[in-house]
Amino acid sequence: MRSYNIFTGDATKIAEGEADFLLAASVTKTCEIEGITQAGIPGKIHLTPTLDAEFIVNEKIFSLGELAETPSGVPTPALITRATHNLKPFLSIEILNLGLAKEPQYSPTYSFDITPSDSIATGANINAKEIFHKGLRFGRQYELKGDYLILAESTPSGTTTAAASALALGYELNGCFSSTFKDVPNSIRNHTIAQALSHIEPNMSDFAKLSQVSDNMLLFCAGFLIEASHRFPIVLAGGTQMAACMLIADRLQKSIDKKSNSENITVATTAWVAKDQNSNIKKILENLSYTPQAIATDFSFANAKIPILKLYDEGEAKEGVGAGACLAYAFANGYNNEDLLEAIETIMYGM
Amino acid sequence: MRSYNIFTGDATKIAEGEADFLLAASVTKTCEIEGITQAGIPGKIHLTPTLDAEFIVNEKIFSLGELAETPSGVPTPALITRATHNLKPFLSIEILNLGLAKEPQYSPTYSFDITPSDSIATGANINAKEIFHKGLRFGRQYELKGDYLILAESTPSGTTTAAASALALGYELNGCFSSTFKDVPNSIRNHTIAQALSHIEPNMSDFAKLSQVSDNMLLFCAGFLIEASHRFPIVLAGGTQMAACMLIADRLQKSIDKKSNSENITVATTAWVAKDQNSNIKKILENLSYTPQAIATDFSFANAKIPILKLYDEGEAKEGVGAGACLAYAFANGYNNEDLLEAIETIMYGM
Repeated sequence: MRSYNIFTGDATKIAEGEADFLLAASVTKTCEIEGITQAGIPGKIHLTPTLDAEFIVNEKIFSLGELAETPSGVPTPALITRATHNLKPFLSIEILNLGLAKEPQYSPTYSFDITPSDSIATGANINAKEIFHKGLRFGRQYELKGDYLILAESTPSGTTTAAASALALGYELNGCFSSTFKDVPNSIRNHTIAQALSHIEPNMSDFAKLSQVSDNMLLFCAGFLIEASHRFPIVLAGGTQMAACMLIADRLQKSIDKKSNSENITVATTAWVAKDQNSNIKKILENLSYTPQAIATDFSFANAKIPILKLYDEGEAKEGVGAGACLAYAFANGYNNEDLLEAIETIMYGM
Repeated sequence: MRSYNIFTGDATKIAEGEADFLLAASVTKTCEIEGITQAGIPGKIHLTPTLDAEFIVNEKIFSLGELAETPSGVPTPALITRATHNLKPFLSIEILNLGLAKEPQYSPTYSFDITPSDSIATGANINAKEIFHKGLRFGRQYELKGDYLILAESTPSGTTTAAASALALGYELNGCFSSTFKDVPNSIRNHTIAQALSHIEPNMSDFAKLSQVSDNMLLFCAGFLIEASHRFPIVLAGGTQMAACMLIADRLQKSIDKKSNSENITVATTAWVAKDQNSNIKKILENLSYTPQAIATDFSFANAKIPILKLYDEGEAKEGVGAGACLAYAFANGYNNEDLLEAIETIMYGM
């Protein structure tokens, strides 16, 4: 297990000390397009962010009876997040409701009067400016408890909306966005993105474009990042979605005449994303106006006793719910691959 | 400023160290009975717990436009709570949604699928057992961050439901419950309690009785107290409502064959409640199966520059949103009457 700089490959570490953990949880109805994501139980994917939230806070779920207590298919990366918390507790784990189908139960959740966005295939129908401004406000408001903040996401089909957002803003980043699938369902995905982009006219404002093709997580977190980065260090915990969030912040900051403070911004992901042949996070980040601190962390399920976990090493799931940053957090705090694997399997045996 | 034991009058102090702060926020439609409470803006009293929640977390409110940023009538005791946080920050301030008319915005809130209860005049229509068990579960689940927990409440007309609950359970505590009014509107209040008790039959179970005359705050916190008191020290922050909560826990614990751990239980209130001629918290507490640690804290607005605050010293408002425990927390951490008064008025000047 090892953390390294995504650009140089040099060994590095996430900041030491204690972190607050926030999960930006959001539903875009894009996730209902058949076969677009495997982030959840088919037919119930709109509940995934709610269940992820309940799981990382409680190590159990409440909003889907017994069913989801048994993982179906590839288990959620929320396992990595919760296992990290069990080894080295975050000062807090809190949820941002950025449009959920169901409020997480028994979990501290911030509400902002945001509802799930529509499928980008037919137009997301978001008030992008309003959501961005809610993020800005929360970035001024949030009271940090620890030394820095880890901001993670759970947004099924969010890599599709991330790709559509970047392309709509004119970035040449075709094929750079990751997926939960090992074998990416490019036809469904590309068709959806093409449908989304068909709603865009070149003379539309950035906000108008994003209102059609983006998601609430990207827009809110972009606003949050700009303001909060002037107040404390932030680790954006995610792969190409969080990279897209940074691009959006970079573009929208001119609308408020206030730049984010790049000194305080790190992006952290898994090596499964960083080394993915079907996406290119490095290229996305190179389109920023600054060079961010960018960290990936190696971790392997090779010695797992529970076979299904090994699918991660084959390229399934890859990232989400802050897993990559959690690996870096565990590593920086002295835990190794074996410690984490044991903590993860202990949770799974208890389910 | 001074904290003292309610039973002996001896000087005492709330535990030193850092506390988590939870606000149990709940609406009973009993609050819509005209003239029963002054905890809020007439016609909008069902929003008071939501606004209290937003205020203690953010020092501003979101769910009532500009209006409630100007206090109307007696300002909410949430001012004392927030001022305390500004002097000696709590490790966290989080909200329990125990049936709210509106989800607090920009505020970390736990949900439990609980809706506002009906007016006890016509029957509260609560599933008392289910709410009590949700409290038990959360008492096993909640992760303490600091050295102990302060559990406060915001439930307008909650002293009326507290009185009805105690009387329904057979405690002889007529006239022992406090009110937000200096001159208690006894006819409205007593009439409401009489209406509530008319739904009770002697042969009903305790749960059946409480389902008709209680509120979600009392039932949930009673369950929470039993389980959580085995895990860490808890300060019940409130006056006669929290005393009623302790009575209910004392009575319902036989249903689960698990007693609360009284060693870990303190109740803390204001001297405005402890010295109130129209109520008797001491007598309520004497009905418990154990003698709890019970603290009141003197504090005076005599030197306030903002005249409306002096109404507290005349007996208006008295307690709520954890004000009494906050005074004790500020005092134990080295702050005096003047420090708090300045912190409170600084907030009000900024509004």
